[in-house]
Amino acid sequence: MAVKAQVLYDFTAEPGNNELSVREGETVTVLDQTVGGGWIAAQNSGGQTGLVPEGYIQVIRVSNVSGGEWGEDSWGGGGSYTRNTTEGQNSQGHTNTQQAYDDDDDEWDDNWDDQSVSGYRDSNQVDEEGGASGRLAHGSTMKISLNKFPFSKGPNPEVFLLAKPPTNSRDRLPVYMGEVGAVWLYPSSPVDCVITDPKKESKLYGLKSFIEYQLTPNSTNRPVNHRYKHFDWLYERLLEKFGSALPIPSLPDKQVTGRFEEDFIRSRMERLQAWMSRLCRHPVVSQSDVFQLFLTYRDEKEWKMGKRKAEKDEMVGPMMFSLVEPEGPELDAAEVERRCEQYSRFTKLMDDGVRELLNVGHTHWKRCTGPLPKEYKRIGQAFGNLSTVFNSSKYPGEETLTEALTAAGKTYEEIAQIVAQQPQEDLHFLLETNSEYKSLLGCFPEIIAVHKAAVEKVKEADRLVSAGKINNNDRKCMNQRISCMSYSLQAEMNHFHSNRIYDYNRVMQLYLERQVTFYQQIADKLRAALNQFSTL
Amino acid sequence: MAVKAQVLYDFTAEPGNNELSVREGETVTVLDQTVGGGWIAAQNSGGQTGLVPEGYIQVIRVSNVSGGEWGEDSWGGGGSYTRNTTEGQNSQGHTNTQQAYDDDDDEWDDNWDDQSVSGYRDSNQVDEEGGASGRLAHGSTMKISLNKFPFSKGPNPEVFLLAKPPTNSRDRLPVYMGEVGAVWLYPSSPVDCVITDPKKESKLYGLKSFIEYQLTPNSTNRPVNHRYKHFDWLYERLLEKFGSALPIPSLPDKQVTGRFEEDFIRSRMERLQAWMSRLCRHPVVSQSDVFQLFLTYRDEKEWKMGKRKAEKDEMVGPMMFSLVEPEGPELDAAEVERRCEQYSRFTKLMDDGVRELLNVGHTHWKRCTGPLPKEYKRIGQAFGNLSTVFNSSKYPGEETLTEALTAAGKTYEEIAQIVAQQPQEDLHFLLETNSEYKSLLGCFPEIIAVHKAAVEKVKEADRLVSAGKINNNDRKCMNQRISCMSYSLQAEMNHFHSNRIYDYNRVMQLYLERQVTFYQQIADKLRAALNQFSTL
Repeated sequence: MAVKAQVLYDFTAEPGNNELSVREGETVTVLDQTVGGGWIAAQNSGGQTGLVPEGYIQVIRVSNVSGGEWGEDSWGGGGSYTRNTTEGQNSQGHTNTQQAYDDDDDEWDDNWDDQSVSGYRDSNQVDEEGGASGRLAHGSTMKISLNKFPFSKGPNPEVFLLAKPPTNSRDRLPVYMGEVGAVWLYPSSPVDCVITDPKKESKLYGLKSFIEYQLTPNSTNRPVNHRYKHFDWLYERLLEKFGSALPIPSLPDKQVTGRFEEDFIRSRMERLQAWMSRLCRHPVVSQSDVFQLFLTYRDEKEWKMGKRKAEKDEMVGPMMFSLVEPEGPELDAAEVERRCEQYSRFTKLMDDGVRELLNVGHTHWKRCTGPLPKEYKRIGQAFGNLSTVFNSSKYPGEETLTEALTAAGKTYEEIAQIVAQQPQEDLHFLLETNSEYKSLLGCFPEIIAVHKAAVEKVKEADRLVSAGKINNNDRKCMNQRISCMSYSLQAEMNHFHSNRIYDYNRVMQLYLERQVTFYQQIADKLRAALNQFSTL
Repeated sequence: MAVKAQVLYDFTAEPGNNELSVREGETVTVLDQTVGGGWIAAQNSGGQTGLVPEGYIQVIRVSNVSGGEWGEDSWGGGGSYTRNTTEGQNSQGHTNTQQAYDDDDDEWDDNWDDQSVSGYRDSNQVDEEGGASGRLAHGSTMKISLNKFPFSKGPNPEVFLLAKPPTNSRDRLPVYMGEVGAVWLYPSSPVDCVITDPKKESKLYGLKSFIEYQLTPNSTNRPVNHRYKHFDWLYERLLEKFGSALPIPSLPDKQVTGRFEEDFIRSRMERLQAWMSRLCRHPVVSQSDVFQLFLTYRDEKEWKMGKRKAEKDEMVGPMMFSLVEPEGPELDAAEVERRCEQYSRFTKLMDDGVRELLNVGHTHWKRCTGPLPKEYKRIGQAFGNLSTVFNSSKYPGEETLTEALTAAGKTYEEIAQIVAQQPQEDLHFLLETNSEYKSLLGCFPEIIAVHKAAVEKVKEADRLVSAGKINNNDRKCMNQRISCMSYSLQAEMNHFHSNRIYDYNRVMQLYLERQVTFYQQIADKLRAALNQFSTL
């Protein structure tokens, strides 16, 4: 059966690039998901075929039971939130995809395992001018958009605003008033973990193979093993549970080719480490059951039981706000709105800034690994050639010159190598950090939209009371809840700011340190080459 | 009357570039000599118009007396050599062009004054990939080819080989056997001169203006003034007199636009200085009457008389060889041929090496002044923008980070400027020196061809004796003369080698010194930027 996909954003094909223009809302047929470089081959309803950026479309997972047509209830993992909506507490109602998750580990669909786009380091595939990822302006918010779908378009915010607070106080999320304003409760001993030893494993007598990473948390110091698809499962759970309130950064991109090449494994491990470290630093995420399970499960049995429990968790999506217990005074909807606007402005501006830095960084990367070292090599070779020619002159006493010229030539050839390798030494970390922030910042529009939708609902409270739809107690409850939402957002923004200051301080220092070393190394090499020439 | 030009080399137009394909020997009509960038607008006999590289054609100067048709006797300054050939000692026979030179200074055609292509520094006009000068593979040998024309295609080498030695021994050119082989007699006090104070002068009540340079030779320490066209006149004289035996470097290129702009004047003066310094260092050229006249004339009268005398000089072209007095034993034609081959190989190889260095240098120049600093500026601005965004966060205590980020941004913007200016600081001199050597090396094929033609003639000596065309004394004389030619070439090659070693040693040191300073400066700036970040 042909795989269909829903177009999420308008995309205009570049002439002569074998691309296909698509419009938001259009349904296309997926022809090939393995073309690589962030592209998918697709056919529109008019029969035209071409490449579309994979982030611009969402493959429709068709339930075998309900038939081939795409419908509201066939949206992916995000559908789980519907369990907790007005549609009823139907714990059996999760979708086909989730059913698969519940099955034995070996039954997971291996097609989506370990496949990712390598990101900017594969300069052949990714190009800020023409490649797919450069155009994925909304790439990082995609999954969240889908998961928020039931909230934004489905059930009303009142579901949360009027829901009963949970009875289990163990999950409560206190918000304190610190020096910088509202802050989460930070754990006394912060969680951390180290990812090491990627191992190629296989199953089905070697027919299927995958990479298993070893994670060692500082709490137990006992290593656990996880495959990429386990990380992806954790990501889905965190997104489902916290995505309405906290930015959950995307996992490292998918890569289609070279999944067992050393570079790719090293690069993925480095990115998984960065992803885990960021989550470990988050006071809410790192303390959650699902995250603790991922890091500290003792055996397969505990892991599988924990998985099932996490997948049945009902405190997901905006319900999280009902756990927030702020220390500060109650805020009204207008104040919440004002803060939302302020955070929205900031995250939008920072998103622009991060994108610009990523753009110029990618351009610079290409120059430093392409034309620039080629030029230094040619300069070096030109000096070397001249030296060879001079050597053939048979004119006596020019050995000092020819030897110095040869050395100068070799120096420029060495500089070419240094220049070509340098981005991996410095620009790499600057771009990695900014990519992480691009991913985080991509989550905020949705988080802020959730708040805005709640504010709009609270504005209607008077009318709802008049119409007899809610009573004054409900109205009071709504006001109290929206205040909680605002404190949650403030605490999260302050967490974001404090991490941002730490991260940018660290990455800028690293970048500048290595840039200094780079230029100093070249200066020293050239000084040595200079000293080979005879003083006149 | 339409200006006609003879096409010297095949030129194939690039499609879409408004160029005109022409074939060697074709006559075209010159439409516009002022288009600039080394191009001339021309029309072929079929009526097609387009641009042709100015070095590929030779404007035909039609004598008003002899009528409009182009003929052998209408070739330019080089025709003067015919005075000393089998066509007779007709001292009245110099061409129309020379007649003009003999007239009052103001009568010189101002159209060719002060017009030159600015060379590689004008990156808009000159481009090693597409521009006119990049394609002028034979550009520097052009004038010599024309001047050698009477020798190569006109009178036989026997004109020199059998001519009587001159009676005036004052002009004799001794060749000694030094440590490195044959060497010219070097003057005990080397000539040098300094060019300063370019002044814009005008005549015809300001209708015509020009730049006058002040030259101060070390011999008299008395400044003399010269316009560019005087330098051009000197170049023509030296080429005529010495071009068969010594490489006479071309004058700085013609430039059509901006002849009074400061940069152009500074650049031309610098190049005229380099040109004069090189000639001053040459023991034969610097001691010649015409060169001494140029540097030391006392007044207008002495200058004009000297000019007339120089233009009537009969010891020009291959006749120079008859002045050579070698110290070493007589060489035979086979030995001369062997040495010719050796020098030909070397100069060809070095010409290739120099061209390659110029090519990569021009490419590097463009990158360093174009995309690279733009990228550093963008990186700097991206840091600066992030700092501005961070500043708007209202999160307390991040001044250290935002100030350091701003400083880092400014540092990269400064680096952008340093990078853009750097080629002028270092690459400039490397390219200038290599351009000079390209010009010198371009003279050797002709010099070597003169020797080869003489060798061929001497090989015929037996047959000529049998045919009664020459006697045994003539044959002996020929052998003696070709030996002189070889010593002259050896002395010149040794002069070339010794200068080459000096020049490349000097220019490579200068280049590397300034490259070290450049990289060190950037390392230091970045270190200062790094220190603004707080240690974590």
